[in-house]
Amino acid sequence: MLLSDLKTPAFAVDLAKLERNTARMAATAQRLGVRLRPHVKTHKTVQGALRQLRGGRSGITVSTLAEARAMHAAGFTDITYAVPIAPQKLAEAIALQRAGAEPILLTDDAGAAAALERAAFDAGVRLAVMLKVDCGYHRAGVDPASDAAVALARRLADAPNLELRGILTHAGHAYGARNADEARAIAREERDVMVGFAARLRREGIACPEVSIGSTPTCARLEELDGLAGVSEIRPGNYVFYDRFQADIGSCVLDDCAASVVTRVIGSYPERGQVAIDAGALALSKDAGATHVHAEPTYGYVVGHPELRIEALPQEHGLVRLPAGHRGLAVGTLLRVIPNHSCLAAALFSAYHVVEGERVVDEWRPVRGW
Amino acid sequence: MLLSDLKTPAFAVDLAKLERNTARMAATAQRLGVRLRPHVKTHKTVQGALRQLRGGRSGITVSTLAEARAMHAAGFTDITYAVPIAPQKLAEAIALQRAGAEPILLTDDAGAAAALERAAFDAGVRLAVMLKVDCGYHRAGVDPASDAAVALARRLADAPNLELRGILTHAGHAYGARNADEARAIAREERDVMVGFAARLRREGIACPEVSIGSTPTCARLEELDGLAGVSEIRPGNYVFYDRFQADIGSCVLDDCAASVVTRVIGSYPERGQVAIDAGALALSKDAGATHVHAEPTYGYVVGHPELRIEALPQEHGLVRLPAGHRGLAVGTLLRVIPNHSCLAAALFSAYHVVEGERVVDEWRPVRGW
Repeated sequence: MLLSDLKTPAFAVDLAKLERNTARMAATAQRLGVRLRPHVKTHKTVQGALRQLRGGRSGITVSTLAEARAMHAAGFTDITYAVPIAPQKLAEAIALQRAGAEPILLTDDAGAAAALERAAFDAGVRLAVMLKVDCGYHRAGVDPASDAAVALARRLADAPNLELRGILTHAGHAYGARNADEARAIAREERDVMVGFAARLRREGIACPEVSIGSTPTCARLEELDGLAGVSEIRPGNYVFYDRFQADIGSCVLDDCAASVVTRVIGSYPERGQVAIDAGALALSKDAGATHVHAEPTYGYVVGHPELRIEALPQEHGLVRLPAGHRGLAVGTLLRVIPNHSCLAAALFSAYHVVEGERVVDEWRPVRGW
Repeated sequence: MLLSDLKTPAFAVDLAKLERNTARMAATAQRLGVRLRPHVKTHKTVQGALRQLRGGRSGITVSTLAEARAMHAAGFTDITYAVPIAPQKLAEAIALQRAGAEPILLTDDAGAAAALERAAFDAGVRLAVMLKVDCGYHRAGVDPASDAAVALARRLADAPNLELRGILTHAGHAYGARNADEARAIAREERDVMVGFAARLRREGIACPEVSIGSTPTCARLEELDGLAGVSEIRPGNYVFYDRFQADIGSCVLDDCAASVVTRVIGSYPERGQVAIDAGALALSKDAGATHVHAEPTYGYVVGHPELRIEALPQEHGLVRLPAGHRGLAVGTLLRVIPNHSCLAAALFSAYHVVEGERVVDEWRPVRGW
């Protein structure tokens, strides 16, 4: 089957680019002397995770317990669930622990910590936990300058049914960087905040074996810093596919983007400067992309057509603005769109079509839900 | 099972509100003397479609051929596929026709019309088609003032293997209305453009039995016009659930919204004025909502908490801004969020939990894909 035989819209994964992206990040981690604990949240497939771990099955990061269950069913263990756990999800986490998945849970909250202790005690298990730290993104995590942060770390370290593995952060504010220089400054801050906080914990007598950092934008900059001493692991995820956003802020170039939405022209209106494609909000997601970099918003990059701008996304239509004088595109024309945000676009498809050049060579089925 | 037993995030459908919304729209159509050919694209379930048709199974609208197949498998017929068809999808449409689904296809393009004629001739079938008309939204459709529009209608009417059923429009620009007055003006324009174009076709000797109009925002205003003479059917869809956008532009009130995302607090940060919830971009969608009405963007309405604003949506976190002095919410607290755009949020869930009050009484499984 060829790409041009696909029912549209479809989600295509360029295997050669994915292999290159995953090999490069593994090499980066190796050069930096840190463990790569890759995040699988972007692709949510066993096949993608195996490439991230170069064939291994130990030490990954997930964004949902559904991902954890699916990965464990495929033989993966040592699975960090990198979202602060709600007490109501503890029974599922304990079931994973009993099944041998070796989950590592996150918390940044005294109430949730109390629930963790109680649930682990009641179940007669010992749960591995990481303390989530806010390194400047302000999404989640304890303030590492606060006394409450040390007190919570001590509480987790002292709880008999918990094992404090260390500290973890996500420098999501690196997505607000406008270029590599700004991303590098955030990568340095991320490293320094975490290494500093780990040192503070150790001075307080609290063991902190693991120091976990690294989003795709900051991992793209880590080799430009003066070393990663004190960091034990990195957890990038988006780099498997990359996307237009990552290219816009300098994490990659457009040619690295391994995921695209395959679509066809379903209407051509040169008299009003538009064509319509069959990839709408349910194929590309409404992520507006790097609006802090682009003056003109667009919902993706049309491969080979830098002159085209996807200006609106109703549910099943993409509206493409043509430059002045453009004669339109024939209805039925195949286009490929690199989405603004591959994690969100991928989540709209029940299957990915894996391609080598124009040939469809495989189909991967991602995990869905929670 | 109770709402509070649901794994979060979850998609809850309030059955009483859905029943009220569907009964009201059916009554509106009856009072107006037009057929209700409801759109199923918002919920994509057999159960929802049955409510829309008051138990009937004939005359619906779909946004994908996957919806058409699923609805036909459940016994529905007379199915308008309300997106201009790409030539590559004709084989699927013809298969539906042969199976007895009675699809009605859309086109606004001479090239696509030629493909329709050829495919119908080659297959030895007669395909029902509607000419898509642009009544001012500028997403798709022929310009009703143009000679090309009449020429295309004539071509469709004259093709032996096609049956021109009439003309169809979608006044999507009603979503840009700021209030009921503006939506009413667009509803009037939609009616007048279509009735006028149908009259023009008839003067040209082209039969035009059907005149199909009606989005949820314009259908909310149709009874305020001076009649619908010349219109044969309306095709609203979002009204089954409604959402924050529709409430913001006056199509409904917030209490009509039948769909909500059930979520829990996973982090509480009163010191920086935030809480985090476990409904992120993959539960609520990144639809920014009625930004032309709201100065302060928010990704949904937190039921019972008008003081809370969902200010950012990473993949699996919702970041909620607290008003000054707010003491935060305990981790684990259950919240319900009316999404900005229920069509897009619903599409992120593989099942809906149907509730009566706090009781979960059913589970509906929507169609996915294309």
